[in-house]
Amino acid sequence: MDAKTMPPQEEPLQDIAHLGHVELMTPKPNESLWYFRDLLGMEVVHQEGQSAYLRGYGDYAAWTLKLTEGKLPGVGHISFRTVSPQALERRAAAIEESGLGIGWANGDYGHGRCYRFRDPDGHYMEIYYEEEKYVAPPELHSTLMNQPMKFTGRGACVRQTDHLAVCCKDVDANRKFVEQTLGLKLREQVMFENGKTEIGSWMSSTTKHHELAYVLDIKGLHGRLHHFSLWVDDKSDVLRTADIFAENGIEIEAGPSKHNNSQAFYLYSFEPGGNRIEVYTSGFFVYAPDFEPVVWDEDTRGTGVYWGAALPESFLNYATPNIEKESEFDLEHLPVFSPH
Amino acid sequence: MDAKTMPPQEEPLQDIAHLGHVELMTPKPNESLWYFRDLLGMEVVHQEGQSAYLRGYGDYAAWTLKLTEGKLPGVGHISFRTVSPQALERRAAAIEESGLGIGWANGDYGHGRCYRFRDPDGHYMEIYYEEEKYVAPPELHSTLMNQPMKFTGRGACVRQTDHLAVCCKDVDANRKFVEQTLGLKLREQVMFENGKTEIGSWMSSTTKHHELAYVLDIKGLHGRLHHFSLWVDDKSDVLRTADIFAENGIEIEAGPSKHNNSQAFYLYSFEPGGNRIEVYTSGFFVYAPDFEPVVWDEDTRGTGVYWGAALPESFLNYATPNIEKESEFDLEHLPVFSPH
Amino acid sequence: MDAKTMPPQEEPLQDIAHLGHVELMTPKPNESLWYFRDLLGMEVVHQEGQSAYLRGYGDYAAWTLKLTEGKLPGVGHISFRTVSPQALERRAAAIEESGLGIGWANGDYGHGRCYRFRDPDGHYMEIYYEEEKYVAPPELHSTLMNQPMKFTGRGACVRQTDHLAVCCKDVDANRKFVEQTLGLKLREQVMFENGKTEIGSWMSSTTKHHELAYVLDIKGLHGRLHHFSLWVDDKSDVLRTADIFAENGIEIEAGPSKHNNSQAFYLYSFEPGGNRIEVYTSGFFVYAPDFEPVVWDEDTRGTGVYWGAALPESFLNYATPNIEKESEFDLEHLPVFSPH
Amino acid sequence: MDAKTMPPQEEPLQDIAHLGHVELMTPKPNESLWYFRDLLGMEVVHQEGQSAYLRGYGDYAAWTLKLTEGKLPGVGHISFRTVSPQALERRAAAIEESGLGIGWANGDYGHGRCYRFRDPDGHYMEIYYEEEKYVAPPELHSTLMNQPMKFTGRGACVRQTDHLAVCCKDVDANRKFVEQTLGLKLREQVMFENGKTEIGSWMSSTTKHHELAYVLDIKGLHGRLHHFSLWVDDKSDVLRTADIFAENGIEIEAGPSKHNNSQAFYLYSFEPGGNRIEVYTSGFFVYAPDFEPVVWDEDTRGTGVYWGAALPESFLNYATPNIEKESEFDLEHLPVFSPH
Repeated sequence: MDAKTMPPQEEPLQDIAHLGHVELMTPKPNESLWYFRDLLGMEVVHQEGQSAYLRGYGDYAAWTLKLTEGKLPGVGHISFRTVSPQALERRAAAIEESGLGIGWANGDYGHGRCYRFRDPDGHYMEIYYEEEKYVAPPELHSTLMNQPMKFTGRGACVRQTDHLAVCCKDVDANRKFVEQTLGLKLREQVMFENGKTEIGSWMSSTTKHHELAYVLDIKGLHGRLHHFSLWVDDKSDVLRTADIFAENGIEIEAGPSKHNNSQAFYLYSFEPGGNRIEVYTSGFFVYAPDFEPVVWDEDTRGTGVYWGAALPESFLNYATPNIEKESEFDLEHLPVFSPH
Repeated sequence: MDAKTMPPQEEPLQDIAHLGHVELMTPKPNESLWYFRDLLGMEVVHQEGQSAYLRGYGDYAAWTLKLTEGKLPGVGHISFRTVSPQALERRAAAIEESGLGIGWANGDYGHGRCYRFRDPDGHYMEIYYEEEKYVAPPELHSTLMNQPMKFTGRGACVRQTDHLAVCCKDVDANRKFVEQTLGLKLREQVMFENGKTEIGSWMSSTTKHHELAYVLDIKGLHGRLHHFSLWVDDKSDVLRTADIFAENGIEIEAGPSKHNNSQAFYLYSFEPGGNRIEVYTSGFFVYAPDFEPVVWDEDTRGTGVYWGAALPESFLNYATPNIEKESEFDLEHLPVFSPH
Repeated sequence: MDAKTMPPQEEPLQDIAHLGHVELMTPKPNESLWYFRDLLGMEVVHQEGQSAYLRGYGDYAAWTLKLTEGKLPGVGHISFRTVSPQALERRAAAIEESGLGIGWANGDYGHGRCYRFRDPDGHYMEIYYEEEKYVAPPELHSTLMNQPMKFTGRGACVRQTDHLAVCCKDVDANRKFVEQTLGLKLREQVMFENGKTEIGSWMSSTTKHHELAYVLDIKGLHGRLHHFSLWVDDKSDVLRTADIFAENGIEIEAGPSKHNNSQAFYLYSFEPGGNRIEVYTSGFFVYAPDFEPVVWDEDTRGTGVYWGAALPESFLNYATPNIEKESEFDLEHLPVFSPH
Repeated sequence: MDAKTMPPQEEPLQDIAHLGHVELMTPKPNESLWYFRDLLGMEVVHQEGQSAYLRGYGDYAAWTLKLTEGKLPGVGHISFRTVSPQALERRAAAIEESGLGIGWANGDYGHGRCYRFRDPDGHYMEIYYEEEKYVAPPELHSTLMNQPMKFTGRGACVRQTDHLAVCCKDVDANRKFVEQTLGLKLREQVMFENGKTEIGSWMSSTTKHHELAYVLDIKGLHGRLHHFSLWVDDKSDVLRTADIFAENGIEIEAGPSKHNNSQAFYLYSFEPGGNRIEVYTSGFFVYAPDFEPVVWDEDTRGTGVYWGAALPESFLNYATPNIEKESEFDLEHLPVFSPH
């Protein structure tokens, strides 16, 4: 190893702890709730306004998914938790400086004040530090002292939130924004046309492969969701989830199969509200401090899978809301923060 | 959330990236090599002096296990990689200040200069930053661009190093030493007699549950190894490993079963040289920046398992080297760094 | 192959199709029902008198487990289905001839006339041919045309009845009785003291490893149950069941581990009524028409496992009803056929 | 249940014990041997002439797959073992009567005399009873007394032969032939055009779902092979096999996914000689003596899967030998029985 491989300066502080809660919009709140609660086995911890707050049994936060009724499906807002109050201040300042900040708000059920902003593509985001840890009611106490909640064994019984993938018109710009303001690190990338077209970028602030991905919106629209992903412990849990979906009329879009990017074992389905949901496990973790992002081109990306059938056309074409023109989706008036 | 729960100051920098390579001593080098290469499916990348250097297919470093011939089994030395050259300097300074430093050395096959020291119990340790990434020879190229080496499918085919557990006479002192000098964070702890006796502490610098554990040496000896642990992707891989061990006359000490502490799925066996080796997967990851260590007492620790048979007596009594008196184990003259 | 290995005459007709429904007695009917329905995920198809009738989602018969309230736990009666009406007549005649016949009866909910008898040890048994196939109500229709019922994904969601093991004072006599009257074939055997003491015998009429096992009642009592076993598809289902039991306060007696005899992957627990229940999968199937029973002695039997902890003392000592003297268990007055 | 559901007469005797050994032809014997031995983990027990004889670790017979060099891939011959010498005589007489018999022959390595014949489509078949059981050499002894051979853990380490699917011009005629002469029982069927076109039929003589399947040869050719299938114990083994194939450049045609017909979990690949090979597990077993064959039509058959991607076009179009005209495949001169 020679001097060239030694970084000229240190990496910035890791101020973002992890992807926090996510809000999904659904035009079919009851059916969506059935999907997340009865099929995926999440627990409802709170209901307020048009929203239900859910959690996986292994999530340490009180809730990680907020399901809000809306005219169209999609992502309401995305959050990240910081590692400390000081880190929150630092990140808020960096975002403010970027010109995309919205401002401080008082939080929501279960978490404290947060700084709100939008990424260049328009997705609503927020960062926060203060958060209530989940305290299970007696009937949901786990016999494992280090597990926040009982493993209920209901349906797929997903353990916890894993990651989120959103569409955007300009992957490069959005990736750079979260790298610079949040300090997320690039893990893998799909670059077509000799590196000229950034098709997708997968980023993380932890050893988890990715917590946030940006993928190209091939319709050139803004603020849309590609998929929300939930973690199970074992590949067998993914196979079992496929049985549960097949028995309950849930459309499986792709998988169970193995990604090349991330090496994860996945199953994509559409929840009744229309959002694409992934049940996910395995894959590799990134421990190297000098990990070099893996870049895939047309050839190496191939069909997007390591084995299993090629990802279908819909995987490229479909996002929520599933609209054709910007004007159909009033992103500006999303009631995403309505309850507070 | 009120002010009391807000940390008065920020956490120290995370300077340690992860547990690095580990050196195990074995009085039966050929048989130990057969165990790690043919049964666990590790790859030999280098041989030098009395040592063989091995890796799991998913390890990004050139090697992670150094197997060195010695009169007695046990751990030769333990290493940690830092996140940057600057972090290496900072940690070296902190260790130096502790009075337990040995000094800088020129590294070993595949990694650069390192700072050597001993923990209060006497285990040899080193920290380093510069490291060669593994470049697979053509016959071991993976068809997965993001996987350092081909999945050979040989035997258990362990993916990578997971963690190390060492015995010590005073858990409290050793835990504090690595917390203070390396910045490892406490994840779980077993405290008996109303918190007076620290039986074991599990620590990590990443989202991985633990990378280093200290457990009480019930013989009151120094510098001994409890176990070295290797990661596989799936619980089914652990079960398959049990079949491989049973067919090859390897003594299984405990498992396959599920720990309460860590929630991991484990299998403990003795490699022919006598060291306890764990094949390990699942368990929980720590994402919370304000994770509160989980403390188990006599009651909650129970038999040491969540389900499956109680951990046997040997799990408490046996460590390597398996000696009765300090004088049998010439820790001072271990040829641990002999090749360089 | 020479003439000596050629059988002098053909094997008798295979008149028994498989183990049929089983009736278990329980002093805690509500808690037992919770265990079988909510934890194991069986479906209640009928309730009548003091009995609930349950099924696994893959059982083709309307029901396979009858849970009947009684003062003590244990097995109510055991049944076998024949391959044809003619086979039923043949087996009834053979039993009648043995002197242990009780006589014809009109059946029960879901199955037609049956011939009742007792084995030499006193267990109530019956054989029948006519049986109602399960027709799922709309809400339990499977989307798989070849699956009798929806995979509900509730709890362990056991697929179907697998086998039954009963205790007896004289294994040799009982084994010979079912070999001769029912034509069951011996698969494996544990013989101690140079073949003088038959500790257990495992028998089947199909390629399934065993459908009925006799094991020695070490208290010298009669008519007791060792365990009832239910099939899941995958070893991962057994591990998941262990989690469910651990979260719900169900005592796990042994496993998840792998038997040497049968090679199956097992988990033994006690249902709230006290009966030992096994969740079971994998193992080997017997396809050879000239399969030679495998006989284990003290040495080869070992701890009764292939890997995993030795079977505990309770596995030898405990049976239901858990009594010390014959007089505590009024086998003669069991209301086993009471509803009809 | 009324008289109508009672069979007017008994089922014929079950004279066929199971599918026996299978001979596959390959134009690339070395590469095919690598696939079966190094990737699937089968064991070579004998080589003679242009043939290698292989076995899975759980096969009780000395060998179950004969790999023979030939100009084109395909099936050499198919065999069935009978339950007794008398059953062999009965089945030979029934075949003789059908006019498709070839005559008695002296057997092959490891099995005794056999009666040879061709099915209506021209596939070579034989039935036999006498067979050598496998006796493992010391280095392949299993530590499990009831397992014929050591689980080597090499590659996929398939346990045993499962089934064979062959193509034919007239499914109805071939199915009836094996039903009438061999007594195989129909399990599932795909019937298109309101039951006029029999696309495929799956048959068995045991509780195994199917041992032989006939599927329509859409090119109208004769004597071709659709696939040969090998059993592993667990779905995780199938996923692991996919990794091994992907790392070794083996083309995966379909799966890992779940069939609707059979409910099995499958992976289809092409061995280097061109034959389609399935790695297979799970699915349902048929215990009902009055099992009613499940008939699928265009709608219910769907894409041929329960979940996972639709079976590709090649699954319908490709068979071995992969020829366009009958004249390219000299079925009459196949050296299938050449060694003896």
